[in-house]
Amino acid sequence: MLHFDCDYMEGAHPQVLQRLTDTNMEQTPGYGQDAYTREACEKIREACGCPQALVSLLVGGTQTNATVIDALLHTYEGVLAAESGHISQHEAGAVEASGHKVLTLPQHEGKVSAGDLQDYLNTFYKDEAYPHMVIPGALYISYPTEYGTLYSLNELEALSRVCRENGLLLYLDGARLGYGLVASADVTLRDIARLCDVFYIGGTKVGALMGEAVVAPCPELLPHFFTHVKRHGAVLAKGRLLGLQFAELFTDGLYLKIAKNAVETALKLKQAMVEKGYRLYIDSPTNQQFFYLNQSDIERLRRYCTFEIWATVDQQQSIVRFVTSWATRQEDIDELIRQL
Amino acid sequence: MLHFDCDYMEGAHPQVLQRLTDTNMEQTPGYGQDAYTREACEKIREACGCPQALVSLLVGGTQTNATVIDALLHTYEGVLAAESGHISQHEAGAVEASGHKVLTLPQHEGKVSAGDLQDYLNTFYKDEAYPHMVIPGALYISYPTEYGTLYSLNELEALSRVCRENGLLLYLDGARLGYGLVASADVTLRDIARLCDVFYIGGTKVGALMGEAVVAPCPELLPHFFTHVKRHGAVLAKGRLLGLQFAELFTDGLYLKIAKNAVETALKLKQAMVEKGYRLYIDSPTNQQFFYLNQSDIERLRRYCTFEIWATVDQQQSIVRFVTSWATRQEDIDELIRQL
Amino acid sequence: MLHFDCDYMEGAHPQVLQRLTDTNMEQTPGYGQDAYTREACEKIREACGCPQALVSLLVGGTQTNATVIDALLHTYEGVLAAESGHISQHEAGAVEASGHKVLTLPQHEGKVSAGDLQDYLNTFYKDEAYPHMVIPGALYISYPTEYGTLYSLNELEALSRVCRENGLLLYLDGARLGYGLVASADVTLRDIARLCDVFYIGGTKVGALMGEAVVAPCPELLPHFFTHVKRHGAVLAKGRLLGLQFAELFTDGLYLKIAKNAVETALKLKQAMVEKGYRLYIDSPTNQQFFYLNQSDIERLRRYCTFEIWATVDQQQSIVRFVTSWATRQEDIDELIRQL
Amino acid sequence: MLHFDCDYMEGAHPQVLQRLTDTNMEQTPGYGQDAYTREACEKIREACGCPQALVSLLVGGTQTNATVIDALLHTYEGVLAAESGHISQHEAGAVEASGHKVLTLPQHEGKVSAGDLQDYLNTFYKDEAYPHMVIPGALYISYPTEYGTLYSLNELEALSRVCRENGLLLYLDGARLGYGLVASADVTLRDIARLCDVFYIGGTKVGALMGEAVVAPCPELLPHFFTHVKRHGAVLAKGRLLGLQFAELFTDGLYLKIAKNAVETALKLKQAMVEKGYRLYIDSPTNQQFFYLNQSDIERLRRYCTFEIWATVDQQQSIVRFVTSWATRQEDIDELIRQL
Repeated sequence: MLHFDCDYMEGAHPQVLQRLTDTNMEQTPGYGQDAYTREACEKIREACGCPQALVSLLVGGTQTNATVIDALLHTYEGVLAAESGHISQHEAGAVEASGHKVLTLPQHEGKVSAGDLQDYLNTFYKDEAYPHMVIPGALYISYPTEYGTLYSLNELEALSRVCRENGLLLYLDGARLGYGLVASADVTLRDIARLCDVFYIGGTKVGALMGEAVVAPCPELLPHFFTHVKRHGAVLAKGRLLGLQFAELFTDGLYLKIAKNAVETALKLKQAMVEKGYRLYIDSPTNQQFFYLNQSDIERLRRYCTFEIWATVDQQQSIVRFVTSWATRQEDIDELIRQL
Repeated sequence: MLHFDCDYMEGAHPQVLQRLTDTNMEQTPGYGQDAYTREACEKIREACGCPQALVSLLVGGTQTNATVIDALLHTYEGVLAAESGHISQHEAGAVEASGHKVLTLPQHEGKVSAGDLQDYLNTFYKDEAYPHMVIPGALYISYPTEYGTLYSLNELEALSRVCRENGLLLYLDGARLGYGLVASADVTLRDIARLCDVFYIGGTKVGALMGEAVVAPCPELLPHFFTHVKRHGAVLAKGRLLGLQFAELFTDGLYLKIAKNAVETALKLKQAMVEKGYRLYIDSPTNQQFFYLNQSDIERLRRYCTFEIWATVDQQQSIVRFVTSWATRQEDIDELIRQL
Repeated sequence: MLHFDCDYMEGAHPQVLQRLTDTNMEQTPGYGQDAYTREACEKIREACGCPQALVSLLVGGTQTNATVIDALLHTYEGVLAAESGHISQHEAGAVEASGHKVLTLPQHEGKVSAGDLQDYLNTFYKDEAYPHMVIPGALYISYPTEYGTLYSLNELEALSRVCRENGLLLYLDGARLGYGLVASADVTLRDIARLCDVFYIGGTKVGALMGEAVVAPCPELLPHFFTHVKRHGAVLAKGRLLGLQFAELFTDGLYLKIAKNAVETALKLKQAMVEKGYRLYIDSPTNQQFFYLNQSDIERLRRYCTFEIWATVDQQQSIVRFVTSWATRQEDIDELIRQL
Repeated sequence: MLHFDCDYMEGAHPQVLQRLTDTNMEQTPGYGQDAYTREACEKIREACGCPQALVSLLVGGTQTNATVIDALLHTYEGVLAAESGHISQHEAGAVEASGHKVLTLPQHEGKVSAGDLQDYLNTFYKDEAYPHMVIPGALYISYPTEYGTLYSLNELEALSRVCRENGLLLYLDGARLGYGLVASADVTLRDIARLCDVFYIGGTKVGALMGEAVVAPCPELLPHFFTHVKRHGAVLAKGRLLGLQFAELFTDGLYLKIAKNAVETALKLKQAMVEKGYRLYIDSPTNQQFFYLNQSDIERLRRYCTFEIWATVDQQQSIVRFVTSWATRQEDIDELIRQL
């Protein structure tokens, strides 16, 4: 049985695991005060071209989103996000748990547009009743989005500009950042560091056992951040585990190197599907691929592999999602393609 | 240089790490829906003698405390704890972050007494203004305590009785539970499961990379607990990492077996200290040992080893803490003793 | 200048004010422990046909919504509401401030339908990822709605049935309850008490200086409610002020008697507008009336009276709201009609 | 029966009530956008000597404390207060409800000392583990305190200095501010405005039906405060009710004029008690007086008057509290003194 359910089905990339194994019995101070964490943060700062950035390593994505958003907002502010955004839908109210409303914008293949954002702000501030409403304080975007799509550099720059002109902070959820960067035609890590106020580099889905690296190019945006993270229950006692993994992932470009495999295998699958006449639901350039499938095709394919039913269209048809990762084997994709 | 700062300086016990390594490239579903997590939960239920218990694996201690306490309390309730309790002092307000006050009781070598608890409740409910005050909804205790001390079975039973007679839930923080169980004269894991409403079995400090196993003998106390945990940002995507570690720790009694080493080395150190004339601050039976040390002794010993200054007594004297763990080597303790 | 901005532009109904004046120098215990509060609660219980109901008097509407909803929900639950609901739009995130997401349903002239509610629940629980989402715990409706519309008895019964069959609590915001009850063809206060789990009887907009009376036919739904209200900063020290006002409003049917005036004047205005060729935006049977107006008409009418621009349609046209109240004078309506 | 339970047993001062009555049928915009609220704010600014101050009128004391403290603190900060402070004891966790811990300082007759505050800060920041603890962000004091005592100008200046030198905001709870100002030897309203960052002028206990006036000499400390207050459910729809009352109280010095009566009657009572041999618990200069009374005296006096049992000393003796107010009649005090 082949598995294409999600991109966190395996453990860590072998080099990452090796690093953990090699250092296992070393003794280091806790809470990220160790040399490996320092090494990881330094390498991430360098990759981002932000020598002054605050880098903080957390364990998981929902945790990171809730912790960072709570740090960025004033009590009376909410965060704008696509209605399909992860924080809008699939985080069990973790953002609201810290008292902040998630305000929704229309989504276009998972993305929000600078135009919609500007319209929202115009309408909001023109409403005489706006002081009775949640003030938008930040914009949340994901890159790639929940539909695997990517913002172009132009789109990112436009969003960043609207944010800065209107006093919104821009926060980018990079749970799958590696896959986005290798698939993008024009966006680099340094662009993201330049255009966003805070973002995170996803480890859990791109080679690590777990771990997300928060980057704030201007550290003063996140004062007392260690204490804030602790208050969110998000400090890892053996912080060096995160340090070791990110140090390895950011040595010799491993992070992007392993991300490539996911995108290559995904595009190979997409091409084969299209050639065999299946219809794309969204034309995704990254490691998540969405197709329309008939019920009979679903049943037939499920004998060979697992994948997610994304949504039911009608009694005959559903939208399904196939996900590849750094760990997907070429032979498994070939085998899947043979069964299509 | 020898290190006795804390009990989370190394990675995982070699058997635990081996299990992670052996299974690294296996594909499993996420969020604890995998067979390893099921195995771990089943073994923990068995060890606790609670075939119906809800078992849930979280990542860290503060996270677990904040998540469980928030699940147990009504909005208008607070949690009672020793003034020296971890939630009272060292969790950066994580309990208050979910809206609940930590109400403090006097501590006696880190412990709360059933008498003090009963007095608190009597005084509280006799006060005509009590509806203007935070209603106590649960009692938090740690076992071992922050001072390494242990409740006797009698003491635990008395606390449990006062709680049950007064409608308080009893929650036990077992960050170092293994060290407590092997050091206790009379308390077993089954006693804890019998006397507490919820408790957790600490993995981070006892052989795991990370991980704390929440046990609720009556699952109905924690409805929709997965969603609640997710809302706290505390669900691990690759849940099988926690499952694998606890499955290994609860195979052939590994958890208690490796805990013994910490207690044996700690007691050896304590005996040597006493014989050499150092004064105990607290007579701890577990892996944390507290002594009075002169400034000159501190300086001399710091050439050989690291340890924590717990508190400053005066200009000459401090209270220091030495901590051993499952990983402490006999030769290191012997070397330390030679240097005393 | 005539004023039709809202229904809280005056102080209190003269009889209510008289009661406050007559008792001004009496001494009573605080926090609602006085005889006037008891009298009010008893009269409200009687009017609702709920001799066992918990009745609690709060100061304002947003306060009441936030306090009650927080009391009704488990931490991991959210509250469903029409996207046009007051809690969705105009309470500055007061519900989210206590950690609960407001989940939105489509609105039909301000109302939610039992069908949409059932669809939401079906879709929600069919989604395999639902444990990652906010669990719906209650339904919020307003009566009359923010558009002045009313649920028929059939509609209310259908909503109540879907709620009870699916474990949702039904909470009704009765900020303008009096105006709804006198305008309704078939819904009585006793119906509301029978079909809802908690509701409030609005005083601020219907004759009182301030005050909203929360009614929970089954008091066990709101344990320790005084403490809960206090924690929300919503206990009034001189509680007797609320007691006196509601006692007066529920003596000899004053509450409904004075509500009639608002509906009569509103309907007179609606009829005149229609006769003069203005277009209704919504056909409201209560004291809020919504019309389309051209920019030139707006400018002309604003010389005589104030009213709210509800929404801008385009450069020529807007939707405007005229509101009457218990205090609206017949001669003012007649004068307004003359100016139309 | 005479009543000395508390200082909120009557309605409003007759002049205040008259103002409400005279204006009852006037129509004004809601939410404090009316001319009376502007008048009140202007008069308060003038009385404080702070022409730029933000003044905001809220309904009650606990509400005001919780709302202001939540506005002043960063998420990761707590508020320091005397262990006897109102927010520490009698607000049902309203401060914690917004996620902030109340950190306690020793109390000396209800007051905190600059020395204790400085010691707390020194100890806190010397502790290497302080990033794991709640960062103190503000100091809460009450004036008069819960024991009726007053800070001298020297004491206030010392507290203010320690706060400003250490980056703490100073917030003063003036629920009984009028009584404190008329009783103080040297502290004026302008001193308070000069030394505190935010404070409130209590109306509920000093002549108003309800109402507390928040004053922030530097408005930038409370950005978007209306929205913040709304989010706390603390905006009064008919805001003019608060405006009218404070406008009247700050016309021709009415606020302090009526406060005098409370202090004079309280001091007369204190003197009589002392002369008759009763023992003071605390030597309070304001309208709350605390005495030791034997059980037999308590029973005897309770035939004539009501008062509060503050605390039980032993089976024979209790501490009792007698409270006077702007409304206390000389003849009632004389009658009480006759019965002593």
